[in-house]
Amino acid sequence: MIKVGVVGGTGRLGVELLRLLVMHPNVRIQVVTSRKHCGERVHDRFPFFRHHFEAEYVLPTPENLARCDVVFLAAPEGVALELAPQLLTSKTKIIDLSADFRFQNVETWETQHGQAHPCPALLNEAVYGLPEINRTQIRRARLVANPGSYATAILIGVLPLLEKKLIDNTRLIADVKSSATADSDAQDNIRVLDIGPNVVQREIAAALHHVTSQNIDFVFVPHQIPVVRGMHATLYVDLHSDAEIQPPIAEDLQALYHARFESEPFVDMQSANHFPETRSVRGSNMCRVALHRPRDSNTVVILSVIDNLVKGAAGQAIQNMNLLFGIPEAIGLKHLALMP
Amino acid sequence: MIKVGVVGGTGRLGVELLRLLVMHPNVRIQVVTSRKHCGERVHDRFPFFRHHFEAEYVLPTPENLARCDVVFLAAPEGVALELAPQLLTSKTKIIDLSADFRFQNVETWETQHGQAHPCPALLNEAVYGLPEINRTQIRRARLVANPGSYATAILIGVLPLLEKKLIDNTRLIADVKSSATADSDAQDNIRVLDIGPNVVQREIAAALHHVTSQNIDFVFVPHQIPVVRGMHATLYVDLHSDAEIQPPIAEDLQALYHARFESEPFVDMQSANHFPETRSVRGSNMCRVALHRPRDSNTVVILSVIDNLVKGAAGQAIQNMNLLFGIPEAIGLKHLALMP
Amino acid sequence: MIKVGVVGGTGRLGVELLRLLVMHPNVRIQVVTSRKHCGERVHDRFPFFRHHFEAEYVLPTPENLARCDVVFLAAPEGVALELAPQLLTSKTKIIDLSADFRFQNVETWETQHGQAHPCPALLNEAVYGLPEINRTQIRRARLVANPGSYATAILIGVLPLLEKKLIDNTRLIADVKSSATADSDAQDNIRVLDIGPNVVQREIAAALHHVTSQNIDFVFVPHQIPVVRGMHATLYVDLHSDAEIQPPIAEDLQALYHARFESEPFVDMQSANHFPETRSVRGSNMCRVALHRPRDSNTVVILSVIDNLVKGAAGQAIQNMNLLFGIPEAIGLKHLALMP
Amino acid sequence: MIKVGVVGGTGRLGVELLRLLVMHPNVRIQVVTSRKHCGERVHDRFPFFRHHFEAEYVLPTPENLARCDVVFLAAPEGVALELAPQLLTSKTKIIDLSADFRFQNVETWETQHGQAHPCPALLNEAVYGLPEINRTQIRRARLVANPGSYATAILIGVLPLLEKKLIDNTRLIADVKSSATADSDAQDNIRVLDIGPNVVQREIAAALHHVTSQNIDFVFVPHQIPVVRGMHATLYVDLHSDAEIQPPIAEDLQALYHARFESEPFVDMQSANHFPETRSVRGSNMCRVALHRPRDSNTVVILSVIDNLVKGAAGQAIQNMNLLFGIPEAIGLKHLALMP
Repeated sequence: MIKVGVVGGTGRLGVELLRLLVMHPNVRIQVVTSRKHCGERVHDRFPFFRHHFEAEYVLPTPENLARCDVVFLAAPEGVALELAPQLLTSKTKIIDLSADFRFQNVETWETQHGQAHPCPALLNEAVYGLPEINRTQIRRARLVANPGSYATAILIGVLPLLEKKLIDNTRLIADVKSSATADSDAQDNIRVLDIGPNVVQREIAAALHHVTSQNIDFVFVPHQIPVVRGMHATLYVDLHSDAEIQPPIAEDLQALYHARFESEPFVDMQSANHFPETRSVRGSNMCRVALHRPRDSNTVVILSVIDNLVKGAAGQAIQNMNLLFGIPEAIGLKHLALMP
Repeated sequence: MIKVGVVGGTGRLGVELLRLLVMHPNVRIQVVTSRKHCGERVHDRFPFFRHHFEAEYVLPTPENLARCDVVFLAAPEGVALELAPQLLTSKTKIIDLSADFRFQNVETWETQHGQAHPCPALLNEAVYGLPEINRTQIRRARLVANPGSYATAILIGVLPLLEKKLIDNTRLIADVKSSATADSDAQDNIRVLDIGPNVVQREIAAALHHVTSQNIDFVFVPHQIPVVRGMHATLYVDLHSDAEIQPPIAEDLQALYHARFESEPFVDMQSANHFPETRSVRGSNMCRVALHRPRDSNTVVILSVIDNLVKGAAGQAIQNMNLLFGIPEAIGLKHLALMP
Repeated sequence: MIKVGVVGGTGRLGVELLRLLVMHPNVRIQVVTSRKHCGERVHDRFPFFRHHFEAEYVLPTPENLARCDVVFLAAPEGVALELAPQLLTSKTKIIDLSADFRFQNVETWETQHGQAHPCPALLNEAVYGLPEINRTQIRRARLVANPGSYATAILIGVLPLLEKKLIDNTRLIADVKSSATADSDAQDNIRVLDIGPNVVQREIAAALHHVTSQNIDFVFVPHQIPVVRGMHATLYVDLHSDAEIQPPIAEDLQALYHARFESEPFVDMQSANHFPETRSVRGSNMCRVALHRPRDSNTVVILSVIDNLVKGAAGQAIQNMNLLFGIPEAIGLKHLALMP
Repeated sequence: MIKVGVVGGTGRLGVELLRLLVMHPNVRIQVVTSRKHCGERVHDRFPFFRHHFEAEYVLPTPENLARCDVVFLAAPEGVALELAPQLLTSKTKIIDLSADFRFQNVETWETQHGQAHPCPALLNEAVYGLPEINRTQIRRARLVANPGSYATAILIGVLPLLEKKLIDNTRLIADVKSSATADSDAQDNIRVLDIGPNVVQREIAAALHHVTSQNIDFVFVPHQIPVVRGMHATLYVDLHSDAEIQPPIAEDLQALYHARFESEPFVDMQSANHFPETRSVRGSNMCRVALHRPRDSNTVVILSVIDNLVKGAAGQAIQNMNLLFGIPEAIGLKHLALMP
């Protein structure tokens, strides 16, 4: 049994991690931390854990966490920077769900934060935890930077085209719709959250660069809509117009995608003319992808849907854990979507 | 492995049965029927089944179904009346999710339908499949009449009081809020669906009589509200004012409920002063119950929440299957709630 | 033109007041206050006011407010206690949307708050602003305590029965479903907010006493459900069993209600066998009421629906303003419901 | 008073027309038709009309409708083709909310429908009722083809750029999110409805051609999301790279938009860096537009939000009626948004 710890066990991501870890056959939840609710039983706050596991929140001290084989950090930005160096000395592996270690480039991080990175060597060592591109490195890692949900949905959606260098690097539009941490502004409403350079965009840019070794100009527009869970990325790319490369026809692209994702346990390529819906992944670790090429247009439209709390966060973190410990990648993650 | 069939495999309940059966370790889904979609693959209609099971819809003929150890009937009213006699001759057991066999009293059924019941002996033989009251009989049954969701939430909520004959039989109000089969009238809206004698009320009355051997006057007001899944029954009862019975104080009632439900795998009695919420049972087979006794009032308020598609339908049907085949009652039903 | 001020112009109720006041033909919005956003233009925070009115938030000082004929206080508890005495010296009338002046009984208030009331004479003077019971007094008032939404829906629902003394005073159950100030716990969820003595319950008790001069035992269970606006009160009462009063039959009750509400501009009695829905009052000041008497039961079920922000708060406040200034009661409040 | 008729008075659009017409000071609703509910009173089906207007549904015969000055056709495709020729002989004007007369090009219509158009002269005569481009023609029209909601949101969003010929005609992506006629698949779900050539796309293409006299290649991807009302079009265009035209900088574009929409009563250009939200137009006839130009990109992102039932249908139809009858364009349409 893998002994796991969860730092940040009262937040949205921490609770989702616990939900999935409780049902994982190879896991024993050893430590759940909360500064604020230290001493309370987890199932007194979240009754649906009753009869499933008994644990009290403890403080996120290195001593408490060192008993674990792996610790999931589901904490606000900055916590991982502090905890990671200490934990790694004790052979505890780390899967960090924050953005703290998502940028291997120290300069990018430092420009963004306006300060020196406290542990640049770890930043270099950290592996970006998207199994679809980094499976081998994740297996050998000590510190995994779990991708954000936006980056996950977008990257998987364009991966086959990027890898084959089939698209124009100046043409990528990511129009994303997703639930947001709920607030009163989210009820019966549609709105753009932000446009323009921000930390999410930099993460996506870094990941695109990681795959292609090129800088890709892209436009990223995240929308907040009133769903409880779910992210739908609609991606618009242009096929390369370079004369030497004959643009592949839609059927070939469909075949390319099927081939690329055939052996991926958590990417489900849809048939031609299908539109994946977010409820078809609710609660599951699956990413469903579809590809469309509207008539008379060089533009390809890719649809990529995930549950932003699962494949976009906690589920992917557990997929990474499975890789880290050499157990089957899909174990503990085979739950079907809850639909409707 | 138990070979199971599902009749009505494209409807809301049929799909929910398949979702749970796919994840059940002791089950092989042998037959899924649909008159309309015969020949189609299940996962072409419902992509979230892809990679989980391969099956085509077939016609619901006795020949097709006779290969099963048990058949779940998730079909419109009347189908079970037709199929049950044929299937039972072939040793196939039946769990019927419709109201066809929920009334053991033939006269009640006939009055209600204005016709003779086609198989009155089977009506008598059918066991009302609420494990919390009929566990022993279900184990020996051939034909289980799976309760409706309203009856499930209400019955479990008042069961300890009924069994101890602590409440006034003329005083039971069941104010129920739940999702309905979605339609345009359900968006951002609250409304009562119906008041007055109807088939659901008769089912509840029959079940109350089954437990108490008494007729209980009750008022049943179902409300439709915009949730995807979930039922919240708020039950108002009066403690018996009979001078010989000293009305128990709230603490005793709390203790009574804890004791009654302690060994029930799918009833979770809440602590005093807690309010269960429907999302804490979303996708799970649990019924959560809380009991309150507002100050200066003889009235007891009981809150009972279920997922109407799981404990209120498909999950309870599988719980009944587990009992029918002598395997652990909770197997295949231990999924945690998907919250939020 | 009536010169009005709104204190608390960034909150939910303040914004709803502004929405309705902007469209009121007899009103000029003179002052809108906000401590936090002082100096900002209202329509920079709430773009839907652009082109409709120009105003900046100012501080809620007596000087600023004294320019108004009437001030609506849509502020947290305690603000009215402070502002009211000052404003009333300057002939400005007050309509307070908080609970500060809802209890004419000083002792009740003091017991509840554990302190002396700062202006007990005003508490006595304040008129409870439910036009359906206090129309005459409101016309002459200087200080109106605008009722809460729960009290409004419940009181109107039982008013004809209370006035005719037809119900058992120990039997009133108010099971209320409504939107709540939105938070993450409200998404796709049903839960009880509270049971037991609380400030809302005391307000309802005081209002019931006001109508009947009697203490009425009642049970109040408010539920939070995921609608944006809307309150549905389901009221269960028992007809008086006193031998001298022949319980009226359902038709008589229906007629009684029709007669009682015929001349009320904002109560719409439904025909027999109808179920009012909350979306039919969305954005409107109407309260729709229906009465049902399930067969074989002495219990009467009354359904009362309002928009909790309009008839339950801002709309009723404007109805009170119309009465205070002797203009037609319904002016500025004739908007149809936005349905769906 | 303008005597109006509404054909299709039980449907979503018909009811929305009635809601707005009831509150219009210059209108008398003369005729409301329904084949199915002929003889019923409107407010028996839709109680929120009670006390606002009395009318019975009648059959949509030319005799019944000829009493009107103008008839709104809110009926399924084909009804207008049949009724329009008859009504126009009796001097009754027509505002058709279907797609029947939206394509002035007879060939386009005939190709699409595979049959001869029954009244090609009327098709030519019909004016496309988007006041922002056709105000003058609408004033003189007998037959107005009211635009669809998608076309309205998209056209208004790109209008200033089209008119100034600033964008690349091969580069227009319209990613639209909106409520759909509610069904069970819309709950807590996000999905694309359709990609590829369809009737809506052809309407948009025709309207784009109408403004620019050019064919514009565009990609249109409509998404269905769970809101009751509201449409959010996110438009991606590329500024013309033609060397002779210096691409304007973002500030200029912002100024261009402000100037273009300054005198439009129902277009509200947002300040720079603002994101309009659909709830800010709920129930109102306003279209809110914002323009963004993400750094390092030649792509301009335009956000355009409307209430699809109001500016996208019934409200725009009444705006057209106001133009047809020479009364102030905004009369009867000044309702503020219902927010939240």
